[in-house]
Amino acid sequence: MTSVLILGAAGMVGRKLTEQLVRSKRLRGAEISKLSLVDVFAPTAPADSPCPVETQAVDFSRTGVAERLIQSRPDVIFHLAAIVSGEAEADYDKGYTINLDGTRELFEAIRNAGDGYCPRVVFTSSIAVFGAPFPDPIPDDFHLTPLTSYGTQKAIGEMLLSDLTRRGMMDGIGIRLPTIVVRPGKPNKAASGFFSGIIREPLNGQEALLPVTEDVMHWMASPRAAVNFLIHAAEIEGEAIGTRRNLTMPGLAVTVGEQLETLRRIGGEARMKLVRREPDQTIAGIVAGWPRRFDAARAKNLGFVADESFDAIVRAYIEDEGIPV
Amino acid sequence: MTSVLILGAAGMVGRKLTEQLVRSKRLRGAEISKLSLVDVFAPTAPADSPCPVETQAVDFSRTGVAERLIQSRPDVIFHLAAIVSGEAEADYDKGYTINLDGTRELFEAIRNAGDGYCPRVVFTSSIAVFGAPFPDPIPDDFHLTPLTSYGTQKAIGEMLLSDLTRRGMMDGIGIRLPTIVVRPGKPNKAASGFFSGIIREPLNGQEALLPVTEDVMHWMASPRAAVNFLIHAAEIEGEAIGTRRNLTMPGLAVTVGEQLETLRRIGGEARMKLVRREPDQTIAGIVAGWPRRFDAARAKNLGFVADESFDAIVRAYIEDEGIPV
Repeated sequence: MTSVLILGAAGMVGRKLTEQLVRSKRLRGAEISKLSLVDVFAPTAPADSPCPVETQAVDFSRTGVAERLIQSRPDVIFHLAAIVSGEAEADYDKGYTINLDGTRELFEAIRNAGDGYCPRVVFTSSIAVFGAPFPDPIPDDFHLTPLTSYGTQKAIGEMLLSDLTRRGMMDGIGIRLPTIVVRPGKPNKAASGFFSGIIREPLNGQEALLPVTEDVMHWMASPRAAVNFLIHAAEIEGEAIGTRRNLTMPGLAVTVGEQLETLRRIGGEARMKLVRREPDQTIAGIVAGWPRRFDAARAKNLGFVADESFDAIVRAYIEDEGIPV
Repeated sequence: MTSVLILGAAGMVGRKLTEQLVRSKRLRGAEISKLSLVDVFAPTAPADSPCPVETQAVDFSRTGVAERLIQSRPDVIFHLAAIVSGEAEADYDKGYTINLDGTRELFEAIRNAGDGYCPRVVFTSSIAVFGAPFPDPIPDDFHLTPLTSYGTQKAIGEMLLSDLTRRGMMDGIGIRLPTIVVRPGKPNKAASGFFSGIIREPLNGQEALLPVTEDVMHWMASPRAAVNFLIHAAEIEGEAIGTRRNLTMPGLAVTVGEQLETLRRIGGEARMKLVRREPDQTIAGIVAGWPRRFDAARAKNLGFVADESFDAIVRAYIEDEGIPV
């Protein structure tokens, strides 16, 4: 039996991970005995769960909360909780409190459990731990020089995870997620939002703004791929990973031009014309500092699998969200 | 006028830095107006200081202490205070409390000063932020995968320094010091101690144990070079460094065989015979995980200068410590 705790369960990836665990019923070769879903807003319990589900709205960074969350000694902890990039940059204290102090509270609670408790902890890091200038492709042993507070906080989380795992205090794996495309739901104001928007809005019959040129390339993965990464990270043998416990996930290096071509192919000419070019120097500047393409050889060798193609990413979005095309 | 605060002033490097500042009387193109020397044990005030010297024995990691230490708004802060590698590994809490929390308290105190205060902060990091396996030489853009808690804490300090500097909250530079050889004073139990011991003890007429084979190579710098790195880091233009504020210092890649040859050349055959080979598999194993040789191109281009040769390192030790040879 495998018991599972998900921190950040109400977010997009958390919800899709929950759905997948409910569907598969198993993790690490055993039936899932319990699902604990935690977020600052109460996560929705899946209706069709084969096992008991517990939901909690709580701030895991507050003193004593992490101890309570791990009281039942979950076998696998997915730590997806974070203040996102834009907000962590705008609100210094909030970003450090949740992304750094909160992560440390969780890791310390595990370390201090004191009864030989050593759960698999899957920590979602991000390609935001990297900062320009870059070689192309970026190799697995490229240094972390984040250019945002969010990237800094994720990089520090990676360091703590490695050290506690090396010391045998937990069994952590950090996975650096590519930008998730196509994100379902409403447009948001993230600088990276247009990578999803230029597909999502036209497929839903709405106009989308494109602030950059078509040659802009970015590192992407679908929500499905992200969920598969998380589950594989929960199941992989720790010894196979060695001491370097943080891995850049395989993605697809896709240009905006290729995205538009896919939209035309799958959605048709009329939908592609809903993308309106509106150059934005600020966004173009931000995007220029982001990584474009990784090698990701270590993760691939360890069995993490990228999306097949950008066409497959778009078809998965259409299928998962029930878009009439 | 330049006012200076040194945290960790009672350590070997702190004392030599203090002596050099007292000798030169100037820093950053101006007279030194005040020297504040802080450590857990009261640092000794230099007798011949041309400016007021204040010494304090205080634990800078305790809440509120850092605020008090920067109350007089020193222009340059040398942050050398740390629990060393062996102790940080043996005492998890002590290492994280001083090396991580203490560093953060200092940086936060600077950030919260709130009156446009933005001092140059020189943070001593270490080549312990790197962990095997390595390419040879190790390039400047190689990732940080520390294999000790000390290395982890230093790497996190680097990340925080970068982020606060990027945000304009302080003006930080992190310098990764090579192993300092020849350390004056008594032998200690550090695994790296023999790199100094096999020179120091024979020059003082005493036997030294050599636990590894002569082909072992390591990255070394003299105490003089370390002090020069610190002063150059205090004086260099921030803009020349760019956003990557942490630099691997140039050292010498020296083998144990080359060390012994230098000892024979400078100290004579009889002194070299005081080195007794006593293979120690544990120490050999630890040393095998350490970096051997760096490129250090960025630091060299920024004007940081390595020792000329291992002969020069040994001659400087003899001169500085007044050893009769």
